[in-house]
Amino acid sequence: MTTEDRTAEHSTEGSYVHKGKPFDRDMNYIDDRITRDGRDGWPVEAGRYRLIAARACPWANRTLISRRLLGLEEALSVGMPGPTHDRRSWTFDLDEGGVDPVLGYERLQQAYFARFPDYPRGITVPAVVDVPTRAVVTNDFQRITLDFATEWTALHREGAPDLYPQSQREEIDALNTWMLHRVNNGVYKVGFAGGQEVYEKEYRELWAALDELEERLADRRYLMGPSLTEADVRLFPTLIRFDPVYFGHFKANRQPLVTMPNLWNYTKDLFQTPGFGDTVDLQQIKEHYYIVHEDINPTQVVPLGPDMSGLLEAHDRDRFPTDTWGVGGTAPEPPLAAEVVDPAHTPLHVTGR
Amino acid sequence: MTTEDRTAEHSTEGSYVHKGKPFDRDMNYIDDRITRDGRDGWPVEAGRYRLIAARACPWANRTLISRRLLGLEEALSVGMPGPTHDRRSWTFDLDEGGVDPVLGYERLQQAYFARFPDYPRGITVPAVVDVPTRAVVTNDFQRITLDFATEWTALHREGAPDLYPQSQREEIDALNTWMLHRVNNGVYKVGFAGGQEVYEKEYRELWAALDELEERLADRRYLMGPSLTEADVRLFPTLIRFDPVYFGHFKANRQPLVTMPNLWNYTKDLFQTPGFGDTVDLQQIKEHYYIVHEDINPTQVVPLGPDMSGLLEAHDRDRFPTDTWGVGGTAPEPPLAAEVVDPAHTPLHVTGR
Repeated sequence: MTTEDRTAEHSTEGSYVHKGKPFDRDMNYIDDRITRDGRDGWPVEAGRYRLIAARACPWANRTLISRRLLGLEEALSVGMPGPTHDRRSWTFDLDEGGVDPVLGYERLQQAYFARFPDYPRGITVPAVVDVPTRAVVTNDFQRITLDFATEWTALHREGAPDLYPQSQREEIDALNTWMLHRVNNGVYKVGFAGGQEVYEKEYRELWAALDELEERLADRRYLMGPSLTEADVRLFPTLIRFDPVYFGHFKANRQPLVTMPNLWNYTKDLFQTPGFGDTVDLQQIKEHYYIVHEDINPTQVVPLGPDMSGLLEAHDRDRFPTDTWGVGGTAPEPPLAAEVVDPAHTPLHVTGR
Repeated sequence: MTTEDRTAEHSTEGSYVHKGKPFDRDMNYIDDRITRDGRDGWPVEAGRYRLIAARACPWANRTLISRRLLGLEEALSVGMPGPTHDRRSWTFDLDEGGVDPVLGYERLQQAYFARFPDYPRGITVPAVVDVPTRAVVTNDFQRITLDFATEWTALHREGAPDLYPQSQREEIDALNTWMLHRVNNGVYKVGFAGGQEVYEKEYRELWAALDELEERLADRRYLMGPSLTEADVRLFPTLIRFDPVYFGHFKANRQPLVTMPNLWNYTKDLFQTPGFGDTVDLQQIKEHYYIVHEDINPTQVVPLGPDMSGLLEAHDRDRFPTDTWGVGGTAPEPPLAAEVVDPAHTPLHVTGR
């Protein structure tokens, strides 16, 4: 999701940091839903939609993980903007000719304008685009993965896990909301704090939350117990970015994640789980934050560190009761060959199918 | 030492980073020496000189350590500018009335101008000032500590170590020169790199050097063997700043120092040795870098992390042959009561004498 603040709503050149002020994320999204009954005019349909999800972006990363775990790759194609963007839009600069091969767009903004010619807010990923009209359907990142889990069921792969089990929804919702504000967006609030006082408040809030998560993961393999759920999909993209970006660039630096035993082993565990680590492009992640946020990194130099090879080391999470994929569930296949992350970008070597 | 680059030579507003260029430290200093024979007009004399040494600055930190180890506190008073400075000068903003109580100056620049009315270079610490004339004698940071060790001997405390033993001078000199360029100034070259290519080159040089030091410290307690020398005085101020500043602020982030077993245990060891840790003010250190270098940290927010309480934990360095203070040597007394670091600033609790 980006451009990350209210400034993006305006056409003037803006910045992420506003002197003396806390970071205030614009949480208004296009809230159309793609459902099995198509009540908003968007029925679930194989081949009709295209997910636009930059690998760099944590909010988009969640949709890529969800799509992988549920096996929606064939039914829902993906377009991937490059890691950097200007004030106006994410761009398809990694594609041949700088154009998304399905939509024919150079800029994701074009899909927003196809739907709302005067769309006034930030052009964010993830976004789901209706291929026939080339118009954006929704960019409501919280809803998209929940709908993948509950509305797109007819298109799930065999053995897809139930990421949003009926009996746990209330607890998952509460946990997700808390994580959204305290952790997933919490790191941004630390990094884009407009002054020392705001920063210190946000830093303490973030670390109190991370301590709670460290504690929660002391007696269970995943956030909700022995099986993966939507909550894990929400947390992982923040954790995988923590040491490479949030620690230094956002000054969320009480300690590196590698020194938090449960959170770090949990991160390694998920990273090594099909559908999680194979969506991660650490090089794109670093380029995104360090180049785009020029107001906190004016040189735009992208750090070479940290060494993340530890992600491939053994974790200790299998000491807990484990039923990773739930009843009848299985791990997803390897990623599509066209979607394998550049092995020079991330220390994980997977072969595509 | 600062203001840290050639820009400081000019009266125009400058910056530390120059687009596309490596960082180029002005290494021209006032090279008068204070000697036992007074051949430059500056004889060693108790009470005559005042050392100006901001706690924040690593180059000044070395003189504070050396003064403590050799017991020169009574013979050589110290003035301490605050952690931040403007483009023109370090200032005595921590002193009552914002004025150094001995020199009566608000700005260290005044001592430079008292000597050279048109002094064209950066106003740097450490500087030794002649109290009667209130004029700077020398700011040649490499020479100052060597002269403390070899010229100020008549004023050394009983039991002062020989930090520059005749038989090891050649090796110490070579090591110091290498450390100066590759490590002590190396971190600055990484942090002030003017572009990606320069940064990557400097980063690799720095880490190759740190790997060499990690290796060197695998079979000896101190850099030169069982006893402390000038080489340790030179390295420690860089290491103690590494995780709090150089890792994030300067992007020297292959890995935090806490994950380098020999270097981190060596850092803890020295930190816990009288004369080293008691000169360190981590809060001032962070304020200095994060506030002064506005061109790489425009928000001037000072991070709350990292947690440095690990500095007080046990180290493993006493497994090597040890003769810390050398023949007849003893540890220094606690610091003067007036020079005890604020215990809220550094996790080391020492009582002054």
